[in-house]
Amino acid sequence: MTVAIVGVGLIGGSLALALKEKGLVKKIIGVDNNELHLQTALERQLIHEGLPLDAAIKASDLIILAMPVDAMETLLPLVLDSASGKVVMDVGSIKEGILSAIKEHSNRGRFVATHPMWGTEYSGPEAAVGGAFTGKAVVICDKESSDEDAVEMIENLYQQLGMQIVYMNAIVHDVHVAYVSHISHITSFALANTVLEKEKEEDAIFELASGGFESTVRLAKSNPSMWVPIFMQNRENILDVLNEHISQLRKFKASLEKENYKYLQELIENANKIKRIIK
Amino acid sequence: MTVAIVGVGLIGGSLALALKEKGLVKKIIGVDNNELHLQTALERQLIHEGLPLDAAIKASDLIILAMPVDAMETLLPLVLDSASGKVVMDVGSIKEGILSAIKEHSNRGRFVATHPMWGTEYSGPEAAVGGAFTGKAVVICDKESSDEDAVEMIENLYQQLGMQIVYMNAIVHDVHVAYVSHISHITSFALANTVLEKEKEEDAIFELASGGFESTVRLAKSNPSMWVPIFMQNRENILDVLNEHISQLRKFKASLEKENYKYLQELIENANKIKRIIK
Repeated sequence: MTVAIVGVGLIGGSLALALKEKGLVKKIIGVDNNELHLQTALERQLIHEGLPLDAAIKASDLIILAMPVDAMETLLPLVLDSASGKVVMDVGSIKEGILSAIKEHSNRGRFVATHPMWGTEYSGPEAAVGGAFTGKAVVICDKESSDEDAVEMIENLYQQLGMQIVYMNAIVHDVHVAYVSHISHITSFALANTVLEKEKEEDAIFELASGGFESTVRLAKSNPSMWVPIFMQNRENILDVLNEHISQLRKFKASLEKENYKYLQELIENANKIKRIIK
Repeated sequence: MTVAIVGVGLIGGSLALALKEKGLVKKIIGVDNNELHLQTALERQLIHEGLPLDAAIKASDLIILAMPVDAMETLLPLVLDSASGKVVMDVGSIKEGILSAIKEHSNRGRFVATHPMWGTEYSGPEAAVGGAFTGKAVVICDKESSDEDAVEMIENLYQQLGMQIVYMNAIVHDVHVAYVSHISHITSFALANTVLEKEKEEDAIFELASGGFESTVRLAKSNPSMWVPIFMQNRENILDVLNEHISQLRKFKASLEKENYKYLQELIENANKIKRIIK
């Protein structure tokens, strides 16, 4: 099968590599409005050729949308206009908005909404890596709104990549990712800003930074052109989590202010329950 | 030389392994009020024998204090009482309090205050690992209050372990670690509590957790008996950083509430400057 990947960045590029590794495709066509990205993707042999969107859609059986989610809102209805007899899927981090926008589209059934739970803090085709998705989870949202044959093709594809498929309603998905992905990015960005602020008066503040700091702050390197649109589209859920997170931080603050170390101990013991989840 | 390590946990045990790997010691004596820890340390061959504190001090040239910082406050003056002709060093995360407490001690000069910048979220002798310290930074605090020969011995020891020595005033050290270590632990604990709170109404909230979440939350597994005393002793510095961090989070909150995405973009672009520090 011929696959068009629209947006040959970190996710699109890594997906291209995975599809090639597993021998699932005959040809991969890259589409990107950034000429440099397209060139890098060709040089790194992520794609076989670069084409404009229209030509790529015409030549492909499967169109994978892997651009930032703001571009998705505009592009998805246009792509669906030409999607009869083809399958379109996305890999975006946020679902409700785009699914509402195409609810009444005559080709809605050709679209399968997916979210592979993998990423790094880097971006662009130079950040694409092989073997990225194996063993990870992938969400398929609102499966019942997609045609059966389209869902089957995508399920088969992700299974062959060694991913574990989770089915979820788009609204529930968006709440979940606010908790287990989006808030992690916000805490990391805010932590970076906290220490960078101190650096203005204290030159060598990073001299002692070690593994623990690096681990909590590494997501702060993530690209704003990817994350601002995600935060915009998941604004309400993220505000809920952010309020909860600030109130959890205030408990630590209160325990220190009041020198209530029994309470501080309890807060930490509760946090330790995360061992159940993160081995 | 014979070395006594008081507290054969993660740090003490890993230091024992490093000293043996580099052939820097003839004998390592372990001291621990937890019999099980002592047994594990013997079984894992971290130490050559276990002894009570008094006997261990008598038999050793160098005494390394590697217990939680609350026990340090009590023990350090007692150890110094018997430290004539020997060298004592600690590896604790916080310095000003303990250094004030021994300021007038007749054996103050025999003590070298150090903080190797390495650790993990695990604890106990079973968590000790080889090769832990190589290439990392180690702080020596208030060097001028220690005897020259004592400082020389410790500098030599850390150099042989392949560590990069940084000299720092204790007060400055405590501010620095609040920014690049202690706050990371608090954000991680609070993030774990945020998501665990949500789990009470949403069973499968962790189903989609991937690498990014794991990275920001892994420190939340850290041991309260180590961290409560650190937070107690560095209370004021941590409250300063925590207030700054909450105010940084509030900026993200404000940008979302007011749908001011230009501001959100700026906040993230500023956080991206951390790339300079964390490669």
